[in-house]
Amino acid sequence: MKDCLLVLSGGLDSTTMLYEYQERIAMAVSFHYGSKHNDKELYFARLHCERLHIPHRVISLDFIGKYFQSSLLIGGEEIPEGNYDDENMKSTVVPFRNGIMLAIAAGLAESNELQYVMLANHSGDHAIYPDCRPEFIDAMSQAISNGTYKNIQILAPYTHITKADICRHGKELGLDYAETWSCYKGGEKHCGKCGTCTERHDALTEAGIIDPTIYE
Amino acid sequence: MKDCLLVLSGGLDSTTMLYEYQERIAMAVSFHYGSKHNDKELYFARLHCERLHIPHRVISLDFIGKYFQSSLLIGGEEIPEGNYDDENMKSTVVPFRNGIMLAIAAGLAESNELQYVMLANHSGDHAIYPDCRPEFIDAMSQAISNGTYKNIQILAPYTHITKADICRHGKELGLDYAETWSCYKGGEKHCGKCGTCTERHDALTEAGIIDPTIYE
Repeated sequence: MKDCLLVLSGGLDSTTMLYEYQERIAMAVSFHYGSKHNDKELYFARLHCERLHIPHRVISLDFIGKYFQSSLLIGGEEIPEGNYDDENMKSTVVPFRNGIMLAIAAGLAESNELQYVMLANHSGDHAIYPDCRPEFIDAMSQAISNGTYKNIQILAPYTHITKADICRHGKELGLDYAETWSCYKGGEKHCGKCGTCTERHDALTEAGIIDPTIYE
Repeated sequence: MKDCLLVLSGGLDSTTMLYEYQERIAMAVSFHYGSKHNDKELYFARLHCERLHIPHRVISLDFIGKYFQSSLLIGGEEIPEGNYDDENMKSTVVPFRNGIMLAIAAGLAESNELQYVMLANHSGDHAIYPDCRPEFIDAMSQAISNGTYKNIQILAPYTHITKADICRHGKELGLDYAETWSCYKGGEKHCGKCGTCTERHDALTEAGIIDPTIYE
C-alpha cells in the first residue's frame, strides 16, 4: 500500500530509504534551501525518483538562505573539516531544518491523502543535530498527528541504527552509492575532508562496500 | 525583555497580540501563502509593525498555493458562507498551516537568538482547525524545544480565551479594528457573509465595540 511521503535529500541515507521502502512511497519531496551542496543532492534525488517512477516535488525555501544563519548555506562561513560529530560541525546546523521540512511534508501528505511522512535521520546525527534525535521525532510526530485531520505520523525507521547499518541495507539492495551526494562543500567532486565526507567514507567501509566516491 | 517572535497575519487576533505584547516582541513574521485574502492581511501586518518599529519579515510560501488543497487558496473552490464553526468551513483549512508557520518561525527565532514563538490561536478556532487546538500547540512546543539548541518554546496566551475576549483586550488598548482584515474572500470590502466575517462581527459586538468594519 502506497501511504508514505518521503523527505528525500539525494544523500546516502534518504536514497537508501527510497529504495528500501519503494513499495510504500507514493511521493517524495525535496527542498531547495540554499545550501552549498543543494544542486548536487537534488540532481540525484530527481534521478532516483524518475528511475523508480515515484512522483517528486521540489519545494523552494528561499527564506532560509536569506534569513537563517549556518555555514551550510551559500554566503555562510567556511564548512569545517574534521569528524561529523566534532563540536565544530555545529556551524553547519540550519536551525530547525528538519522541523520545517517535516511540517511542510505533513501538509503535503494531508493534501495527497497520505498517512505517513518518512525521514531518514539516523543515530549518528544525534550528537550535533537536535532535530534528528528520537525525542524530537517523537514530539514532532505527535504534533503532526494532533494538527492534521487524518492524524498523520512520522515514520523514521533508521532513527536507532547507524549510517554503516544503512549502507548494509543498501548493499543488500545492490545500490550504487556513486549515485548519491554527501559533501557539504558542494564542489565538482566530494572534498573528502569535511565531516560529512569522512562520515560517508567510514560508513561505506564499515559496511564492507568499496567506496565508489571520487574525492578531490 | 524582547525575547519573542510573533506570527502575525494582520487579522484581529494577532494584531491585538502585537500591541498587547509589544514590549516582548523583537520581531514579527508574516507569510505570503497564496490565500485569497493574503494581500489584504499583509497590508495591515506591515502597517502595524512600521508603526511600532518592530522588525517584520514577510516569507513567501509559494508551494502552498501550488500543491495544497483548500478553498482558502487562490484557484480553490468558493469560500463557504455561514458560521465560523460550521462543518462546511472545513474546506477553508490549509493542511497543517500553523505547523508550517510555527516551524519556520522557530528556525527564524533560533537564527535571531529569540526564546519564544508567539501564536494568536484562540478557543473559537478549535472546532474546525486541528492545528489551533491546545493539544497541537503543546506537542508542537515540545517538538520545537527538543529540536532547537536553545529549547525555544511556543507562547500562545489566547489559546483558552474567545475572540470576544481578545476584542476586550483590544478595547482596553484602544485599538482601531478597522485596521485589521478578516474576510476570507479578500475582496475590496469585507463580504459580511463568510464564516470569518460573521465571527469578527459577533466578537466585536460581544465585546461592546461598535463594529467599524465596512461590509459590502
